[in-house]
Amino acid sequence: MVRRTGTGVVTDDVIQYLKGQHETILERLKAVLRMPSVSTDPVYGEGMAATREHFLQRLQDMGLDDVRLLDGGGHPALYGAWTGAPGAPTFIIYGHYDVQPPDPLELWHTPPFEPTIRDGRLYARGASDVKGSTTIAIEAVAAFLAVTKRCPVNVKFFLEGEEEIGSPSLRKIVEQHRDLLAADAMISADGGRSSTDVPTVSVGNRGIASLEMKVRTAGKDVHSGRYGGAIRNALHELAALMVTLHDAEGRITVPAFMAEVPRLTAQQRQDTAALPFDQVAFYADIGGSSYGDSVYTVRERLTLQPTIEINGMWGGYTGPGSKTVIPCEAQAKITMRLVPSQDPNKAALAVRRHLEAQCQPGVTLAFSEISGGSPAFSLAPDHPLLAAAMAVVERTTGRRPIATRAGGTLPITSIFKEMLGLDTLAFGFAMPDEDVHAPNEFFRISSLHDGLIAWPLLLAQLARYKPGDFHRSA
Amino acid sequence: MVRRTGTGVVTDDVIQYLKGQHETILERLKAVLRMPSVSTDPVYGEGMAATREHFLQRLQDMGLDDVRLLDGGGHPALYGAWTGAPGAPTFIIYGHYDVQPPDPLELWHTPPFEPTIRDGRLYARGASDVKGSTTIAIEAVAAFLAVTKRCPVNVKFFLEGEEEIGSPSLRKIVEQHRDLLAADAMISADGGRSSTDVPTVSVGNRGIASLEMKVRTAGKDVHSGRYGGAIRNALHELAALMVTLHDAEGRITVPAFMAEVPRLTAQQRQDTAALPFDQVAFYADIGGSSYGDSVYTVRERLTLQPTIEINGMWGGYTGPGSKTVIPCEAQAKITMRLVPSQDPNKAALAVRRHLEAQCQPGVTLAFSEISGGSPAFSLAPDHPLLAAAMAVVERTTGRRPIATRAGGTLPITSIFKEMLGLDTLAFGFAMPDEDVHAPNEFFRISSLHDGLIAWPLLLAQLARYKPGDFHRSA
Repeated sequence: MVRRTGTGVVTDDVIQYLKGQHETILERLKAVLRMPSVSTDPVYGEGMAATREHFLQRLQDMGLDDVRLLDGGGHPALYGAWTGAPGAPTFIIYGHYDVQPPDPLELWHTPPFEPTIRDGRLYARGASDVKGSTTIAIEAVAAFLAVTKRCPVNVKFFLEGEEEIGSPSLRKIVEQHRDLLAADAMISADGGRSSTDVPTVSVGNRGIASLEMKVRTAGKDVHSGRYGGAIRNALHELAALMVTLHDAEGRITVPAFMAEVPRLTAQQRQDTAALPFDQVAFYADIGGSSYGDSVYTVRERLTLQPTIEINGMWGGYTGPGSKTVIPCEAQAKITMRLVPSQDPNKAALAVRRHLEAQCQPGVTLAFSEISGGSPAFSLAPDHPLLAAAMAVVERTTGRRPIATRAGGTLPITSIFKEMLGLDTLAFGFAMPDEDVHAPNEFFRISSLHDGLIAWPLLLAQLARYKPGDFHRSA
Repeated sequence: MVRRTGTGVVTDDVIQYLKGQHETILERLKAVLRMPSVSTDPVYGEGMAATREHFLQRLQDMGLDDVRLLDGGGHPALYGAWTGAPGAPTFIIYGHYDVQPPDPLELWHTPPFEPTIRDGRLYARGASDVKGSTTIAIEAVAAFLAVTKRCPVNVKFFLEGEEEIGSPSLRKIVEQHRDLLAADAMISADGGRSSTDVPTVSVGNRGIASLEMKVRTAGKDVHSGRYGGAIRNALHELAALMVTLHDAEGRITVPAFMAEVPRLTAQQRQDTAALPFDQVAFYADIGGSSYGDSVYTVRERLTLQPTIEINGMWGGYTGPGSKTVIPCEAQAKITMRLVPSQDPNKAALAVRRHLEAQCQPGVTLAFSEISGGSPAFSLAPDHPLLAAAMAVVERTTGRRPIATRAGGTLPITSIFKEMLGLDTLAFGFAMPDEDVHAPNEFFRISSLHDGLIAWPLLLAQLARYKPGDFHRSA
């Protein structure tokens, strides 16, 4: 099954070359971090366009073919391929060029779109999620092409522009470009490391589903003096609905949502326990205290149990001072994290039906799905993607990595599996404490250097397999 | 007790003069409605200044003395006096020049600061609350001065700039100008009519207290995938706290708050029932459905029972699209309406202590009072202010008015009672369905005309009393 090729020496040259490029690559990363590519808010349209331009130019300059936009009606994805290794397997290399919104702005110590290095950390929105790791993947392939004029495997870069908004047009893009995207597996620059202390390789992640809802109690806002005591307040009703989702310990109290969640197996619990996890440090870092169903360990709650979280909630007067109003409308944004057995549509519907059933007389609920959701993903224990990653991480760190599941979601894993039959290895270099989706997001400079060694080794390692080795039944 | 003076014919002349001025007065009112005098938000500073300038100029032009600003460190009040009737009683005439914020802007059919007449209604923020009735009071006195060179009673205009934000510097202003504000009673252009169908005179109103609170569950916002299931969400905690304030029927469930609320007397229930009240029309107008403690009638809930209302609640991501964040902070603005036996500070403290007691481990609450609050107010059944108002309203409407309590709050009533010993008659011409504090606020053109008849008659009627008649024990 494994083909022996003499790429070891060549790969060492590539790694040496990349070491000489560290400053250049860091400057390139800082340049793209200055571009505010917030996909969720139309006001950042220019930042999105500039970021696309930056990456398209880089893909072109490094010598890829067929560099282009793949447009599905939303923010287009970026594409570029090198397919000069007949007989070798072909990998889609996934990254995304969009980032989360930077707010609350006032909590950033330095501006989110002015990358700043402090104590070996590069602070900027998108540094960790995921322009840093996307840059590593690009530069690793670029170095092979620069040093050896070829790459050990065939690669097709696919850089998404809608990862942070639930990939609304990803399915359409994949559908329209099935031939272009034909491959044997996918390597994702997004997702990966589960610990700052011990080496890990990711074998799966939770899924996601989302709902946005509006509560309405009357036709108009009214004066709290003139109407107070005799009409419903939309904020009271929203609060009353939200508390029906969990009990006081944070256990989900939506039976139809939990019906699809199986008991943990002994193996799952054992695998999860294998990762050293400093619970005290975990809570100290975020300034929070332990919470959740005490039947499960914290790591189990984070990776093997589903969640329902209110991400935003608002209504009435929120400006300075006071306004004595009884609001007729209140809103909430909700996302759910899903375990492998849960279907996103069914999960969202279970929550929706539950809330509708709890709704009081005279109160109306309107729901809109924010995105189509994405199921959880798992990589089989004997998968060559996993074997290759384990070998590379063991070689670069000197320690046998622990296989872990992640709590977050990579919607692309399930979409590429379902539509193109591809399994995904998450091989990003972000660490779990880097405040992604929050103020003061950062990426470790040391991770940039680690990645620029590991990625060339991974590409060389994967060249030992035949294309067919990566294809498993769905 | 009642002095007979031959002012009847003179007053008729004044009323005729005002009829000839209708168009001029309406244009003057529209001019001041174009000025966005939103006191709660510093962004409207220019609108506040323009409105002050407008009213100061009018007070000057009509021939008042000592026209000036009374500055207490916040938005200053406006003052102007005519004291040329020795032996006659002296009245402070109260109005306010500030208005509520106009949001939500998108729900206005015409812009809030472009006064527009449709179907006999003048639509604009502040038209009903209370630039319309303030204009009536000013023009009534101006007409007496124009036609007769004198006024039947001594008047001291006091136009506040902070009514809509809880009058934070009112006490300081009154304290600094006790001599200037010496009077026998107060007539307020704010507050008054309780029905669109039958004539009423107001004999009291509920008080108010307020709290602003912030819930904190961690040191920072975090990613809902990486942390979801193991940490508290500030929005969940805020919702959980808010639902502890009421039961499912809307009854307040804060024992220490309700401890000061006495049972209703048979007389109170009888007085309240005397006002014809179309419950179906009331709910149809606001597009809401019946709610509240069914032990009480709707009118009793609106005027004789206290409330706790969330006026605003917010946290997390509220922009377009989705953000998978677990927010560490959530906020709410709360106001309470109080009945005569409740002390505002004790009421607010009861709610605060209750919420603190409900707070979960690892969650912190921070409170800030928005304003000092104001107790409820009552006018004694045999008070000459009430007798004069009843006589005037009976004469102008041909029907004996019903004495009613209002659900809203006039903080000035309790402040002027406490600090200067003055009782207040609320003699405004707003009606209860005019969407004050809400989009599409309006004032009836017919109310402007009614007020310009009733105010001259009231001033003439009050001239029949001696100054001492108005002073009651506090």
